[in-house]
Amino acid sequence: MSKTLVTILTAAGLLAALPAAAQFQKPEDAIKYRKAAFTVLGTHFSRIGAMVNNRVPFDAKVAADNAAIVATMASLPFAGFGPGTDKGDTRAKAEIWTEMDKFRAGGTKMQEESVKLAAAAKSGNADTLKAAFGEAAKTCKACHDDYRKD
Amino acid sequence: MSKTLVTILTAAGLLAALPAAAQFQKPEDAIKYRKAAFTVLGTHFSRIGAMVNNRVPFDAKVAADNAAIVATMASLPFAGFGPGTDKGDTRAKAEIWTEMDKFRAGGTKMQEESVKLAAAAKSGNADTLKAAFGEAAKTCKACHDDYRKD
Repeated sequence: MSKTLVTILTAAGLLAALPAAAQFQKPEDAIKYRKAAFTVLGTHFSRIGAMVNNRVPFDAKVAADNAAIVATMASLPFAGFGPGTDKGDTRAKAEIWTEMDKFRAGGTKMQEESVKLAAAAKSGNADTLKAAFGEAAKTCKACHDDYRKD
Repeated sequence: MSKTLVTILTAAGLLAALPAAAQFQKPEDAIKYRKAAFTVLGTHFSRIGAMVNNRVPFDAKVAADNAAIVATMASLPFAGFGPGTDKGDTRAKAEIWTEMDKFRAGGTKMQEESVKLAAAAKSGNADTLKAAFGEAAKTCKACHDDYRKD
């Protein structure tokens, strides 16, 4: 494996090891945190999307840098969905908390596809990147369809 | 160096290599992004603060995990301070754009202290962590005092 891939996997392992019940003082802090983490995640994911959809020229280094950030960010938001964080300034549907195992499984799948995306980006091959981006994007859409209000 | 420190430094290098003029579609996207990155950064930095200030018990692993996230996040927000992002839903002072070199130097110093904090956290020594946390916190305060509205 490349040094960067080892880096990504190590970082993903570090993050996955964080306790799910992270210490937020108030529910609104958890909501603000998870939205912020998704904002950063989505920003960098979209930059890869712009390349694979030919809106900007393919640049292997930019793709790899953004994908590394995506892989790091992917593990963060889920700590912000603890008990009591279903009400407030959020588009999260109540089903998240009644189907928490399914929701968490979706999050894990997204994290896995993000690590694969980072590996694909490192390959420097635009087609490989596009395929991995598509698989990762499916995991975003699946949870947004089921668990996010329009 | 430990494997984790190598990981952190590699990640920091990756992130620092991102072009400063990142592609935001609209100024408000850049403002939302930088605020989000600071929210995630501050959340994890505060968890270390709670330990060094004895509000929660010292846990070397939790400190190291949070510090690794801090080091990764520290490089992100500054891409969001491009031209035209001085107006909008932001507490950023106008001086950022008239003193951009000084502002960026403060950001670089913060990133450097964040990498040192991550290394200190890996030592597992509470006093070492506390000292590094103090130095890093000074870099937060310096920019907040000069460049953030109350």
